[in-house]
Amino acid sequence: MFREPSEHILSMRTTDRPLIFVTNDDGVQAAGIAALMRLASEFGDVVVVAPNESYSGMSHSITMQRPLFVSCVSSEPGLDVYSCTGTPVDCVKIGFDEILPDRAPDLVLSGINHGSNANVSVIYSGTMGAATEAAMYGIPSIGFSLTDHSPAADFTAAVHYARGIIEHVLTLPAEQRTGLCLNVNIPDIPLSEIKGIKVCRQTLGCWREEFVHRTDPQNRDYYWMSGRFYNAEPQAEDSDEWALRHGYVAIVPVQTDLTDYRRIDPLRKLFNPLS
Amino acid sequence: MFREPSEHILSMRTTDRPLIFVTNDDGVQAAGIAALMRLASEFGDVVVVAPNESYSGMSHSITMQRPLFVSCVSSEPGLDVYSCTGTPVDCVKIGFDEILPDRAPDLVLSGINHGSNANVSVIYSGTMGAATEAAMYGIPSIGFSLTDHSPAADFTAAVHYARGIIEHVLTLPAEQRTGLCLNVNIPDIPLSEIKGIKVCRQTLGCWREEFVHRTDPQNRDYYWMSGRFYNAEPQAEDSDEWALRHGYVAIVPVQTDLTDYRRIDPLRKLFNPLS
Repeated sequence: MFREPSEHILSMRTTDRPLIFVTNDDGVQAAGIAALMRLASEFGDVVVVAPNESYSGMSHSITMQRPLFVSCVSSEPGLDVYSCTGTPVDCVKIGFDEILPDRAPDLVLSGINHGSNANVSVIYSGTMGAATEAAMYGIPSIGFSLTDHSPAADFTAAVHYARGIIEHVLTLPAEQRTGLCLNVNIPDIPLSEIKGIKVCRQTLGCWREEFVHRTDPQNRDYYWMSGRFYNAEPQAEDSDEWALRHGYVAIVPVQTDLTDYRRIDPLRKLFNPLS
Repeated sequence: MFREPSEHILSMRTTDRPLIFVTNDDGVQAAGIAALMRLASEFGDVVVVAPNESYSGMSHSITMQRPLFVSCVSSEPGLDVYSCTGTPVDCVKIGFDEILPDRAPDLVLSGINHGSNANVSVIYSGTMGAATEAAMYGIPSIGFSLTDHSPAADFTAAVHYARGIIEHVLTLPAEQRTGLCLNVNIPDIPLSEIKGIKVCRQTLGCWREEFVHRTDPQNRDYYWMSGRFYNAEPQAEDSDEWALRHGYVAIVPVQTDLTDYRRIDPLRKLFNPLS
């Protein structure tokens, strides 16, 4: 069953439509990915590989301790949907290296996430983990998030802006597309109230946790994580949090070199005696 | 049982010794963390909160879908060891916000990891996820990794260099320590053959997977992830991969702003019509 749709994909090579890969971290059943795969189908042939359940907060994690199972949920001309028992990054890797070994997608879309991935949340986000993984393969990627955690969130405005952003990214020259990764957050307000798009930088700050501490029926202490974001720069008009709070769609370009270049020279002086 | 060692920690506040927090991603039973907690005890009072099993490859993931259980593995003056059913980042969060709510550690050490976390592996690494999380709390942190995956790896050289690096970091002025995060990788060669320390940048490149594809007893296809790193710049003498290959301990300072600043202006031009 698993191999057949792969053969179907190969047959797509004869078409001129872009191949668009879709994933998320809320799971293949989420309303957000349903909206995104419908939107993606307007632009090209679509292959979806998404987690079989919620992998929210899974960041860039990969599954090394257990095997992955993949099943074909549905297959129709131009739209194949797979479910995978792994993380969002696993879905990208198994999608690129196993399901589509002979054709790289033209674009990867991740989301639409139920909840914001602005500020440092980008680091914890499985949605953005998948998008950055795709960019590491050189494939342009866009992660979309709506600042509403509700499973029944209204994706109308998110889809409207996502459509425009996808159109623009698909028209970019190849050298600008390669490795492009966008973190797009859409405010949870009616479409008519959104003021437009702002290209931003990631807001600095951190999450602090307030664990809910309870005792289970076996008298063991347990802790549920529950936190809030502390914005270190609430006045920064070029930050994604500011844009969202002021009614804009926030786009942050993302990269994967974590080197803190400003610290290299001072550290070279510090460690010179050990060298 | 869980609260008592916390009270013990509070009693530490009367001592002048630094408080050092230790975690890892290979699990509380790993040889690497045993070596690191012994080393940490040379410098101060030590609190260990580490996963109850291997969370290798868990990146910056947090546990939102299930509760966390924490148990005290051992407690002696100056060394408390806790096991947590969560990821390395969970261990830092529950350690800082629940176990040590009244005193921030002076330093966080993560590792010693069994296996390299150089190059883009820093992004997938649970060891480095914990270290960067600590830095986001403002606490200086160091992740140590030995380029030997074996559970019985020889940590002699790693401990030797880790000792020198910890000494230097603890003597830094406060403004240089705040938010410092170091990714330290030690080559798997005898101590006498190590040439010294190089402060580097993260090597660019990517992992490509070769999934092992088999069929289980229920006739279901399954996939084990197995990949290799493709170095995009093998000649770059300022990269961590080059340093390790040439017999140096590699130190890369790490930061958590993922913004790709070079793309902001071109993207502003691209999306202007939508703004």
